[in-house]
Amino acid sequence: MQDFINYMERINMFKQVIAIMEFDSETIAPGGGLAQRAKRAGFFELEVYNMQTSDTIKNFLDTLAPVLDSQDDIVKALYKEAKDEYDKKVKIPADIMEQYAKLTEESNDVWRKARKANDFAKFAPYLERIIKLDMKKLEYRKDKIPAGGCVYDVLLNDYEDDMTVTIYDRFFGTLKGTVVPLLKKVMASEKKIDTSFKNAVVDIETQRKISEFIAKKIGYDLNRGYIGVAAHPMCMSTDSTDVRITTRYDETDFLSSLYSVLHECGHAIYEQNMGKDIAGSLLGDGTSMGIHESQSRFYENVIGRSLEFWEFITPELKEILPKEFAHVTPQMFFEAANESKPSLIRVEADELTYSLHVIIRYEIEKMLFGGECKIADLPQIWNSKYEEYLGLTPPTYADGIMQDIHWPIGYFGYFPTYALGSAYAAQFLHYMKKEMDVSSLIRKGEFSKITDWLREKIHKHGSKYTPALLMQKSFGEQLDSTHLAEYLTNKYSKLYKLI
Amino acid sequence: MQDFINYMERINMFKQVIAIMEFDSETIAPGGGLAQRAKRAGFFELEVYNMQTSDTIKNFLDTLAPVLDSQDDIVKALYKEAKDEYDKKVKIPADIMEQYAKLTEESNDVWRKARKANDFAKFAPYLERIIKLDMKKLEYRKDKIPAGGCVYDVLLNDYEDDMTVTIYDRFFGTLKGTVVPLLKKVMASEKKIDTSFKNAVVDIETQRKISEFIAKKIGYDLNRGYIGVAAHPMCMSTDSTDVRITTRYDETDFLSSLYSVLHECGHAIYEQNMGKDIAGSLLGDGTSMGIHESQSRFYENVIGRSLEFWEFITPELKEILPKEFAHVTPQMFFEAANESKPSLIRVEADELTYSLHVIIRYEIEKMLFGGECKIADLPQIWNSKYEEYLGLTPPTYADGIMQDIHWPIGYFGYFPTYALGSAYAAQFLHYMKKEMDVSSLIRKGEFSKITDWLREKIHKHGSKYTPALLMQKSFGEQLDSTHLAEYLTNKYSKLYKLI
Repeated sequence: MQDFINYMERINMFKQVIAIMEFDSETIAPGGGLAQRAKRAGFFELEVYNMQTSDTIKNFLDTLAPVLDSQDDIVKALYKEAKDEYDKKVKIPADIMEQYAKLTEESNDVWRKARKANDFAKFAPYLERIIKLDMKKLEYRKDKIPAGGCVYDVLLNDYEDDMTVTIYDRFFGTLKGTVVPLLKKVMASEKKIDTSFKNAVVDIETQRKISEFIAKKIGYDLNRGYIGVAAHPMCMSTDSTDVRITTRYDETDFLSSLYSVLHECGHAIYEQNMGKDIAGSLLGDGTSMGIHESQSRFYENVIGRSLEFWEFITPELKEILPKEFAHVTPQMFFEAANESKPSLIRVEADELTYSLHVIIRYEIEKMLFGGECKIADLPQIWNSKYEEYLGLTPPTYADGIMQDIHWPIGYFGYFPTYALGSAYAAQFLHYMKKEMDVSSLIRKGEFSKITDWLREKIHKHGSKYTPALLMQKSFGEQLDSTHLAEYLTNKYSKLYKLI
Repeated sequence: MQDFINYMERINMFKQVIAIMEFDSETIAPGGGLAQRAKRAGFFELEVYNMQTSDTIKNFLDTLAPVLDSQDDIVKALYKEAKDEYDKKVKIPADIMEQYAKLTEESNDVWRKARKANDFAKFAPYLERIIKLDMKKLEYRKDKIPAGGCVYDVLLNDYEDDMTVTIYDRFFGTLKGTVVPLLKKVMASEKKIDTSFKNAVVDIETQRKISEFIAKKIGYDLNRGYIGVAAHPMCMSTDSTDVRITTRYDETDFLSSLYSVLHECGHAIYEQNMGKDIAGSLLGDGTSMGIHESQSRFYENVIGRSLEFWEFITPELKEILPKEFAHVTPQMFFEAANESKPSLIRVEADELTYSLHVIIRYEIEKMLFGGECKIADLPQIWNSKYEEYLGLTPPTYADGIMQDIHWPIGYFGYFPTYALGSAYAAQFLHYMKKEMDVSSLIRKGEFSKITDWLREKIHKHGSKYTPALLMQKSFGEQLDSTHLAEYLTNKYSKLYKLI
């Protein structure tokens, strides 16, 4: 048993160093070193792969399987982690994996060019081949299909434990049923939102100070953290004592960095709050993409986009920038930070419309892996769904079906997880409100009680439990999108005076 | 053969990642992560140790030994690297190594406290035990003693290939014979040097710009480099495409950072200029501490502390800082940057007096390992040498025999290498001057010819050759301190108007 734990700890050490290299690469590493860095990253990733698929790990898994029930949660979670990786990587023959790697690399390249040329027909054959090869890969993983399920379930489960089409159908059904009509009302509303002050010039040094102030305030421990600058905001964690984030600063868009920092701090606080029993180990990180994103969305949206947050932060902001925002009230900041408008591009969508972008992708993936549609018809399907849910039709493929990198590189089953974060966050808020006056705490800038609650319910468990098990243990129920539906209805009805 | 090369490349990958982690740790890593970082560094260092001492490497060495003569320089150098590490680490029994590690850790701790309390007697027994244990370790390495040599030779050779007491005695003899009387003349000189402008306030952002300007100018490629900030100036290289330096900025001492940057750039340019045949490999770094330091000293002192350099840089500096240095001439900068004064602390010594500090330590180490003195007598020996060479007597042990960390942690044989850099640098200058007008190039800020010359003679060979072999190949002669003696005599005679 101790040998198995040590072996997993060895994998953990390699993963930590890969994280450090990645953070270094995204922040301060010189551009000229790219090739050697790629070589080095490849080397260490192969080391991890070799450990995860070794005869040694197979022996551990075989020995542990019959006695697993009598083990503690930590051994069980390590076993699951090891087994998932082993199965995913070993069951499919190496030549198919190689074919797939080559194909997606080529496809990625073709997609980039075709997107520029607005030429879907050029990319379509690659998409077709990727899906075919994916189906072939899935033939080796049929044992992963849940009872009464389908092959797409296996892909969904790759990105979020326990998820299935059945669960997502219900989840997205509720959401769509609320958001689509709500958005129509918002669009019809006569409420005008003043956003003129959003682009006031705030120099980068000041933005840096604001970032640090807010990060500290909401509970990000800078003694175990660091706020860097990178092209893409990110959070990197080796273990709970070293959790770093990045943001980017735009002199004429201070809200962009402020919300990036809040978002990444949500991820970071989760990573910093691991329980003592798992901190520093392979289990000392977030349990899933969905739960991780719930923490970033909680701090970014539930807290950061609330009126109460602006009631708290506006006086602080005015002290730092008395001139720029002299006339701006908390209500005005709140409105400007929450303006909702249907748009074509997922990554630019607001809190209300975001899930609709995800739903469209989910519905199309489900059709693709159910054999219910042809590749050639995709643009038309895409466009009609955008028209139906968001009232817009993309003028180009780049603004439409060719906007995301996921399909060109074979990341099917990934998109749906993007919608989980907000739903979990709203669900957590629902339960949190039963135990404390959340609004009042935010208004007073007293975030420690909120973070303490999240630590006890979510953070400290790390990846000891799958999302479903965590929900069961902490709340006695499963993911439920009615909370998000309710949260969005309340927020946007008030904001746009729909009631 | 390819297996051996691949195995060494594997060690190289681990060493590169250790370098990245170290740089990260010294620059941006959060303080709270110290313990986990130490654990991780220890893990990867042990991995390297295990590879360097494995049965696999022993097999490679045994197989290669009989056919080594027919191999190319690269295989020969890799063999030497592997064999040196193997011998150093395997020949001494593990329990003695463990004892030594424990003892030096304890000794380090005692030294810190004893230094504060100015209590040599408290530290002395530890020093005695370390030397005893070192002698015991050396018994296992008797085969490393050169013909007619002594045990101290083995230690000297650990820090610089090919060095012996015989060589150092001659080397330091010449130097001492010149510097001690020269320093007496300097001290007697009536020349007054104006240093009043050295502490002008220069804000850090401006110093940053000056650093970058000079670094680029002298040939440090920032596309493969990065200038960071750390408590101690350093140079980190994974390979020639990623070579970073750090400096520290003091608002009231801009020369300090300027010379740190020049010094570290010297190291960095060496690392960036590796030849194609070795770049990125284990041989793609500096061949020895002495040769490495020759490059940093060349850029810092030979170039950076020359009158010609100040003739070049003063107008540039005045453009950036017109007010602060309005009245300062190149001659004044030159003089202020070269003021010489005997002092008690090695790390603060100037170009003229530095080697005297090193000589004192060398002479004492030689006595210690020759059994020619008692530990209890060391303070008295130390003080009388400082009086003789530098005309000063330390008022406390902290200013005297207890100032350096080297002996408390068992780094015997290390100090002498500190004097090699300046000597090699002066020797290189001697030969360079035969091929180009170095003064004129510096005055015009045309450093590329100088760097090209150093690349061809030194840089591109990396650690393919030992220092002695490199000198033989590039100059047909060995290290010779008469060049440094001559360089210092010329420079300081002019500066202090001794002629």
